[in-house]
Amino acid sequence: MTTTAPVLYESKGSPNARRVRFFISEKGIVIPMKAVDLGAKEQFSDAFRAINPRSQVPALALTDGPVIAEVLAIWRYLEEAYPQTLLLGTTPTSKALVTMWERRAELDGFVPVMEGVRNAVAGLKGRALAGPHAYDQIPELVERSKQRVANFFADFNERLGTVRYVAGDEFSAADITTLVTVDFAVNALKMPISAELTGFQRWYDEISARPGAAA
Amino acid sequence: MTTTAPVLYESKGSPNARRVRFFISEKGIVIPMKAVDLGAKEQFSDAFRAINPRSQVPALALTDGPVIAEVLAIWRYLEEAYPQTLLLGTTPTSKALVTMWERRAELDGFVPVMEGVRNAVAGLKGRALAGPHAYDQIPELVERSKQRVANFFADFNERLGTVRYVAGDEFSAADITTLVTVDFAVNALKMPISAELTGFQRWYDEISARPGAAA
Repeated sequence: MTTTAPVLYESKGSPNARRVRFFISEKGIVIPMKAVDLGAKEQFSDAFRAINPRSQVPALALTDGPVIAEVLAIWRYLEEAYPQTLLLGTTPTSKALVTMWERRAELDGFVPVMEGVRNAVAGLKGRALAGPHAYDQIPELVERSKQRVANFFADFNERLGTVRYVAGDEFSAADITTLVTVDFAVNALKMPISAELTGFQRWYDEISARPGAAA
Repeated sequence: MTTTAPVLYESKGSPNARRVRFFISEKGIVIPMKAVDLGAKEQFSDAFRAINPRSQVPALALTDGPVIAEVLAIWRYLEEAYPQTLLLGTTPTSKALVTMWERRAELDGFVPVMEGVRNAVAGLKGRALAGPHAYDQIPELVERSKQRVANFFADFNERLGTVRYVAGDEFSAADITTLVTVDFAVNALKMPISAELTGFQRWYDEISARPGAAA
């Protein structure tokens, strides 16, 4: 019996797919990848809907198993199936801290950047939320999202003035989400780290130099 | 050396605290709890801010360790520190599926119920998002939240017509978040499970009869 590796469906243009590629690179494992052409709306094709009915990347198709969607679920599978270079913590306490800080990076940073984009871009009219249902854009959310991102930058600058990595002493998935969020904010909202946020910039320079950041 | 148990700061009125109490009950463990009086705004007191600077319950104060906030982080600590009656999955695949379905229950169900409440209630003006920062309410979000909750009910009804539990064959944390979301929707948005959603109702009757649901 041969075991084949799972396949990751992803896209170079998707910040969520980048969170998974970064994670795979840091673990030092090899997972075959298939590109989904979001520009050509391939995620809405019948062929891709058969893989992920929610029409989202990333999605991890397991061998002889279900398709796993959602970044945190794909990370969890990879962490448990390939328990080398743990990125979700190593002890009960550090696992909890990675969960907590990764979640803050996502809810306070990544989510508002995404919300700012999806409620503003003309091509996403009627698609203000990802997933299978249509929702109208709410223009007021764009300004509130930018306020939230600015608060996230300030809060994480304070944190990163006192610890080396987002969750503490060790590099973790919390750093991955935070780095992807910063680059997403720069690209999509034109919001870079401002000059006075020296703690955040010190951290950014270190993390963005890791090979996983280019994966 | 004696080891003392961690202490959970919680409130009977907090749906997020209920997710943790339910989890603790299902694991069959005993964790000392301290009530925080949200009605009296005790979460904003200096004494509580020293425990959780974000003024939120639940928060788990570890013995000789940090305070863990965020439901998912508290669950992760408890699952790893007390590895009996696993509620976050047992194999790499089931752990990923619990993560995926729990997340969908939260993002598609729990979050819109919370959003519908926080953007509507007069007493939460300027507090439309939980956490340390002030954000104005956006009345348009109230109606969109109700649409999202209705879609969540329909989607999970379809799911629960084909599987016994939210994540598949085993009771898990995904059931906990889903049950708390349904009761929260009933109490806060007056949105019960409608009569035609027989799969969801079958599941609700089974899960709400578990002792953990009353914890």
